[in-house]
Amino acid sequence: MKLWGGRFARPTASEVQAFSASLPFDRRLYREDILGSAAHCRMLARQGIIAWEEAGSLLGGLRDVLRELDAGELPLDVALEDIHMAVESRLHEKLGSVAGRLHTARSRNDQVALDLRLFVRSLLASTVGGIANLQSALLDLAGRHPDVVLPGYTHLQRAQPVLLAHHLLAYVEMLGRDVERCQDAYRRVDRMPLGSGALAGLPYPLDRESIALELGFSAVTRNSMDAVSDRDFVADYLAMASVAMMHLSRLAEEIVLWTTAEFGYLELDDAFATGSSIMPQKKNPDVAELVRGKTGRVYGHLIGILTVLKGLPLTYNKDLQEDKEGLFDAADTLLGSLRLFAPMLLTARVRAARMRQTAGESFSLATDLADYLVRQGMPFRDAHGVVGRLVAYCLDHGKDFDALSLDEFQQFSPLFDESVREVTVDSAVAARDVVGGTAPARVAEELRRARTIVADSLTWAAATAATLPDERLLGLPT
Amino acid sequence: MKLWGGRFARPTASEVQAFSASLPFDRRLYREDILGSAAHCRMLARQGIIAWEEAGSLLGGLRDVLRELDAGELPLDVALEDIHMAVESRLHEKLGSVAGRLHTARSRNDQVALDLRLFVRSLLASTVGGIANLQSALLDLAGRHPDVVLPGYTHLQRAQPVLLAHHLLAYVEMLGRDVERCQDAYRRVDRMPLGSGALAGLPYPLDRESIALELGFSAVTRNSMDAVSDRDFVADYLAMASVAMMHLSRLAEEIVLWTTAEFGYLELDDAFATGSSIMPQKKNPDVAELVRGKTGRVYGHLIGILTVLKGLPLTYNKDLQEDKEGLFDAADTLLGSLRLFAPMLLTARVRAARMRQTAGESFSLATDLADYLVRQGMPFRDAHGVVGRLVAYCLDHGKDFDALSLDEFQQFSPLFDESVREVTVDSAVAARDVVGGTAPARVAEELRRARTIVADSLTWAAATAATLPDERLLGLPT
Amino acid sequence: MKLWGGRFARPTASEVQAFSASLPFDRRLYREDILGSAAHCRMLARQGIIAWEEAGSLLGGLRDVLRELDAGELPLDVALEDIHMAVESRLHEKLGSVAGRLHTARSRNDQVALDLRLFVRSLLASTVGGIANLQSALLDLAGRHPDVVLPGYTHLQRAQPVLLAHHLLAYVEMLGRDVERCQDAYRRVDRMPLGSGALAGLPYPLDRESIALELGFSAVTRNSMDAVSDRDFVADYLAMASVAMMHLSRLAEEIVLWTTAEFGYLELDDAFATGSSIMPQKKNPDVAELVRGKTGRVYGHLIGILTVLKGLPLTYNKDLQEDKEGLFDAADTLLGSLRLFAPMLLTARVRAARMRQTAGESFSLATDLADYLVRQGMPFRDAHGVVGRLVAYCLDHGKDFDALSLDEFQQFSPLFDESVREVTVDSAVAARDVVGGTAPARVAEELRRARTIVADSLTWAAATAATLPDERLLGLPT
Amino acid sequence: MKLWGGRFARPTASEVQAFSASLPFDRRLYREDILGSAAHCRMLARQGIIAWEEAGSLLGGLRDVLRELDAGELPLDVALEDIHMAVESRLHEKLGSVAGRLHTARSRNDQVALDLRLFVRSLLASTVGGIANLQSALLDLAGRHPDVVLPGYTHLQRAQPVLLAHHLLAYVEMLGRDVERCQDAYRRVDRMPLGSGALAGLPYPLDRESIALELGFSAVTRNSMDAVSDRDFVADYLAMASVAMMHLSRLAEEIVLWTTAEFGYLELDDAFATGSSIMPQKKNPDVAELVRGKTGRVYGHLIGILTVLKGLPLTYNKDLQEDKEGLFDAADTLLGSLRLFAPMLLTARVRAARMRQTAGESFSLATDLADYLVRQGMPFRDAHGVVGRLVAYCLDHGKDFDALSLDEFQQFSPLFDESVREVTVDSAVAARDVVGGTAPARVAEELRRARTIVADSLTWAAATAATLPDERLLGLPT
Repeated sequence: MKLWGGRFARPTASEVQAFSASLPFDRRLYREDILGSAAHCRMLARQGIIAWEEAGSLLGGLRDVLRELDAGELPLDVALEDIHMAVESRLHEKLGSVAGRLHTARSRNDQVALDLRLFVRSLLASTVGGIANLQSALLDLAGRHPDVVLPGYTHLQRAQPVLLAHHLLAYVEMLGRDVERCQDAYRRVDRMPLGSGALAGLPYPLDRESIALELGFSAVTRNSMDAVSDRDFVADYLAMASVAMMHLSRLAEEIVLWTTAEFGYLELDDAFATGSSIMPQKKNPDVAELVRGKTGRVYGHLIGILTVLKGLPLTYNKDLQEDKEGLFDAADTLLGSLRLFAPMLLTARVRAARMRQTAGESFSLATDLADYLVRQGMPFRDAHGVVGRLVAYCLDHGKDFDALSLDEFQQFSPLFDESVREVTVDSAVAARDVVGGTAPARVAEELRRARTIVADSLTWAAATAATLPDERLLGLPT
Repeated sequence: MKLWGGRFARPTASEVQAFSASLPFDRRLYREDILGSAAHCRMLARQGIIAWEEAGSLLGGLRDVLRELDAGELPLDVALEDIHMAVESRLHEKLGSVAGRLHTARSRNDQVALDLRLFVRSLLASTVGGIANLQSALLDLAGRHPDVVLPGYTHLQRAQPVLLAHHLLAYVEMLGRDVERCQDAYRRVDRMPLGSGALAGLPYPLDRESIALELGFSAVTRNSMDAVSDRDFVADYLAMASVAMMHLSRLAEEIVLWTTAEFGYLELDDAFATGSSIMPQKKNPDVAELVRGKTGRVYGHLIGILTVLKGLPLTYNKDLQEDKEGLFDAADTLLGSLRLFAPMLLTARVRAARMRQTAGESFSLATDLADYLVRQGMPFRDAHGVVGRLVAYCLDHGKDFDALSLDEFQQFSPLFDESVREVTVDSAVAARDVVGGTAPARVAEELRRARTIVADSLTWAAATAATLPDERLLGLPT
Repeated sequence: MKLWGGRFARPTASEVQAFSASLPFDRRLYREDILGSAAHCRMLARQGIIAWEEAGSLLGGLRDVLRELDAGELPLDVALEDIHMAVESRLHEKLGSVAGRLHTARSRNDQVALDLRLFVRSLLASTVGGIANLQSALLDLAGRHPDVVLPGYTHLQRAQPVLLAHHLLAYVEMLGRDVERCQDAYRRVDRMPLGSGALAGLPYPLDRESIALELGFSAVTRNSMDAVSDRDFVADYLAMASVAMMHLSRLAEEIVLWTTAEFGYLELDDAFATGSSIMPQKKNPDVAELVRGKTGRVYGHLIGILTVLKGLPLTYNKDLQEDKEGLFDAADTLLGSLRLFAPMLLTARVRAARMRQTAGESFSLATDLADYLVRQGMPFRDAHGVVGRLVAYCLDHGKDFDALSLDEFQQFSPLFDESVREVTVDSAVAARDVVGGTAPARVAEELRRARTIVADSLTWAAATAATLPDERLLGLPT
Repeated sequence: MKLWGGRFARPTASEVQAFSASLPFDRRLYREDILGSAAHCRMLARQGIIAWEEAGSLLGGLRDVLRELDAGELPLDVALEDIHMAVESRLHEKLGSVAGRLHTARSRNDQVALDLRLFVRSLLASTVGGIANLQSALLDLAGRHPDVVLPGYTHLQRAQPVLLAHHLLAYVEMLGRDVERCQDAYRRVDRMPLGSGALAGLPYPLDRESIALELGFSAVTRNSMDAVSDRDFVADYLAMASVAMMHLSRLAEEIVLWTTAEFGYLELDDAFATGSSIMPQKKNPDVAELVRGKTGRVYGHLIGILTVLKGLPLTYNKDLQEDKEGLFDAADTLLGSLRLFAPMLLTARVRAARMRQTAGESFSLATDLADYLVRQGMPFRDAHGVVGRLVAYCLDHGKDFDALSLDEFQQFSPLFDESVREVTVDSAVAARDVVGGTAPARVAEELRRARTIVADSLTWAAATAATLPDERLLGLPT
């Protein structure tokens, strides 16, 4: 059922058909395509462009095709080019010529823009849900271990002791920004493009706002040429997904580090680790590594769409067909990664004793010792120097601070007295008592705050999902 | 003035110093650094952490250093590592040991985060201003040519006639989304990080909110570990800039096409074109080409920062120093491109006659002829076929539609009658009378709408710029 | 058949299995896996590590599994993780415990490295073949149109006339460099990694060189840790493919331009163009656009693998599993694009008259007029100025050079005389008679030269393909 | 001195000039530009196109300009657009109108192609030298520590013991491939483009081969249109540099890991580490982190040039001006990183005792215990299971293998006897006695082999540098 053969003397070469068909991947949009067609059909009837009787047949036919596709019963022939043609062709088989009325006042250019926007709206709702679930898991883990202290690192060198809960909250913050990015992207994808036609609008008395309303869009697009050539919303999703995967890659890196023999901070549950066919002792953090690695493909998809769009003149160009596969793969990657991280973290064993032990080693309290000297009256720059030399002394003698006698301390400054023993991991943590600092009360406050925000995100995800069209559109309005 | 030598037995190798110094590029942040220091200093005094007298000296010293830097009088020695050390060192030269009080309760980790956020806030205001100015130019150009018709293209083949104003409005829409992206990015960068210390917060009774207030931030960051390792806001800017440059590259591509001998739609003013040292006839659209090419470097900077951040464990790592050069270069590129496009477009000569002529050629009215047949009673699919065959006939006989006799029309369908002559470029444009369509009244409506939005963007840019800190911070509060 | 359960108390979570299984995509390597196993098996027997009788069973079993896979009869269960396990598991079903002998002195780490290198070797042979075929098509097209002249462009402005054949040869040159890149990449992938074990080599008396010989590798890898973590050869392929796609995107851009109504230089055969469901006149260069767009995904895959590898410590990390999908997709994209371009070009109609006409318009002969004045005795800088002013005069009067009277010429310089009429498109082309210039004899010479080079590339592709292992390895040596 | 004003009525806008000038960065090519001009000038004289007397003046003038530029005495005015104009303009000031003869039979399009190729040829020689020097350092370090054993890792979990020298040789291998990539890239950049003119060749009797000979090129380019629009060699360099930086990022990651308190394998010299202004104990591996981070910018430059080139029609387009800054920055980054890594590694302290200790912990000998059981007669799959359960037992009881009594061993298999004590770190290393394995003799062999290869690379670098043109070209031939 080729729809455009009039001026052509010869058919398309079969290898061209195979190369340019999008059906193998855009079939994923069949639900969006059918529901979009339903809304279009209802509007055509409301505007008197087609008869209500015709609309009834078309909606019934669409309902049947949807059921067939849901059931996997409909073979999709690559010769049909794309999902739009595949659905329309099936409708022809079912309804005969009335099926042709559906394409009235519509072009594949605005149709595909609609389908993809519907998909991304739904995807953003799922993505916010997925992110918020991982945040919840991080908050649960933090809540279970309110007192665990570990070394905070800069340059991967032990720096200052922090609460594990504080460390985990850093990731909750990052992910919270990704939720915001999704919500920002949502506002831009939430524009209904149908009625833009091939590029210039359509010569019919359309009611675009009513389609938008039925499909749950907040507004319609305002320029037909932009509407059929705009794929910014794909770039927006991929930019968000790249940053979110980057965040996950950082968490993944820490899981890989923390499960090493050297760090020993975390032990994954057997269900979230794998072994080696050759080395019997191995227990590998495969999921974390794989997520870290999959960051690459999402970055790649972002560069892919940006490259596609670079330098394209208006309006629709076939290059735009390259908008979908990267998007689909990035979505699967991000959602899949989010889904696994939560149970992986929640089933892991936190080795709190090991964490606390190292938090007190390697001179992590050096800053606090300097602050101690400042409190005893020494300027900070001098105190920094004294403690620096103390560290050098300890390294030479193979000792840590707590193995030093008071005499040894006092060789470096007479301001040291017995009270230096009060500088401990716990005192160090407690002292950072500022908004956003690691003091237990501050961390507890942020934990509460984050729980509220995560709850809001879950609410947003649910409310947004509720705006998405469903099969009720396939019935006639009553 | 090395601030950290205590535990070190040997100085840093000079080639290491040269390799790792950021001063050659982060000197660009000197104003942000000094104003951030001023706000920090005032807070320290308000909290009683330093004396008001000391604060007065420090503020005076900072004011002097700022003047020296503004005047270009201060040589910046690469041995000073970065702009923070350079400023502090100069302060020492001026004030002696009191200068050291400024670094109380602050680390370079939170200091650099502050400086860069201040910079990006300011940059986003300028960027919105720059985008809105280009939008204004596009609107002006559209407003000057309300009746000009040219062919709309899909696949770079003539498709349907559109108004030039409609075509230009497509770019106004794109750029409008870039404004939104800037505003979204602004919300996330608008968090004040000072008080996060090296990574864990600080053991002082700080009032972080008051610093935020003085520097015009809406809120403070909520997790110290995230605050010192977060560079999302750089990625946000670069993602926005990549999409914006992509938009400009599309416009650039069209300018290059339109100024060819083949299209002949536009003639650049001599001031915005260049010639050839060898070919006397050449008049090249260099600016458009260069902007199109510069898209590459901005995409590159986006990939750069994403690569830097991938897999980094918490918290600060030296890799993060790579956050600035790409940002600065992308900012200069985008702002510079925006700045040139407006006058280039406004001084160009629109070759309206040529546009109108081609709008009627190459069967651009084929869709309208098919619609005509539909109105005469033929189903669209059949009408499409009839007109397709008509096109084939014309091609064989070297004619366009308007050269056909009524007889010839009627050979393809008896439904053609004299009224077929009423299908014209103007009727085609007028017929697309839907929201976002190319009909003159619709385009005029969108032009008005866009003017309001652009005015709002300019207001936002100005209001945002007004929240940025200025030199009043360098005086003592009265 | 989990091979590593000893130390694990609980099984892998099923969602982890699904997330981390590579079988859905690495099944594409089944032939390489089986032939690699055969060579390994034969070496084990030769070295007396397993008995020849066991080797015979194993080879027979592998042969059967290969046949099942070739016939598509073997269902591949995702629980089997990867193609290596899937093949081994099937072997167990067929042969029982002797199947286990095959994994002697081998790890999946060196096995997957081998399989992928075998794949890339074969791929490089196909790629060189595909490129050389497109070069042949370009040479054929050039050979058919030895006299066709069109405007050469700089900045997409008409610059100087050139032969179409010369223009086409530019792409033959580009593609020739891509052949070289393939051959360079081949030299690096042509190292046999088996025997590297998990990372450290193997405690068996292996004869690695003999495996290399049987599999057609020129040499063995020299460091086991590098061998299991090296994926440079994937990056090499993707870098080559990115540049090759970039070349195709440039050719695609020109096809899109040349088939516009405005340029009118080329008409695609109906079999290589598509129409529009709404606009009956449309004939779109879909293939060229799609290839141009697909450049994006190949760039993306390159960035993907580079991101995966960035900062990975030695040796094997699970991240490396991300090496395959991008490679496979880039290979399919490049080979598919190459395959379609040849017939698309050979079936297209060259509109030679239109080309020649425009070659003489728009002052393309301006440089030659200036050269004419130089020959009449004027310095080039002055001549450039004279012709520049002549162009301005023509533009004002709506004329081209050939419409000027001798009087008009002489108003600009008395050095013009009747001989100025001898400056023609043909004289301009003929004058550029240097190596690599557009003069007909030079172009003919390069055409001959290119044919030889392309023939050599095809020979290389065939000879390289002949070094690849085949099913003879599945029999016992006689 | 604008060279192309004839047809223009108005001058270029100053902001256009500033935006499009390349002089601020292409001034780096001044030496290449002047030497290329000298070779061109000598050829013109040899061919009788200019007089030898004129050539003498021009060469003398070029020599003077070169001296001024070397001495930094020549201010470069941005109004001069690019280095080619800047040099020619200075020549005019010095020589008057004869300076104009230099541009005979040359365009800036082929001139800039020449300059950049000369630059890249030189750069490839330096790069090979830089890589080989780092390889030498790695070999020296390996040679100094022939007996040091550390755990080899997969998935960052301890896997099997390896020699430190073996580990370091893995990087020597990687870098060796980068040398090959440079040499491959060299073959493609080694083509002389002058004589291609603006795009079509030149109407003069040029001897292109003689220019190639004088400038040390092996051959001339064969198609003028390709020659002026080809920037593949920039992409080749950036692809090589991306892979090389990726290799350095892996080494950097290991240095960061090895210098942690947790791993404790390496201690950097104070000269190659930095401290913290706030934390007196800190000693940070800044150089390694920075190199790891700088990988991002090089990847970015690669994507930058690929984006620039995508979809560009022939021939020269202004977009190509974007070829230089990324190249220069990548070159500086790679060469700078290579230069620092060698002394950083050679001055670092290898903590051999710590390495050996951990090599025996964490069940790194599990594979060897399984192999032991195989030698005692158990099938490998069973042995793997026995040792896996032994690992689980040890974990439960907080023991490592060497703390087990023979009784305990025998609870898991009666095949264990006293000889199990012979399974040691040293026996494990010695057992991997295959080509490329970690057995000491094998490692020593590869060390010798690598030294030869590195020496060859240094020879290549020197020999290649010797083909580069020098100031002798500025004299008249005698």
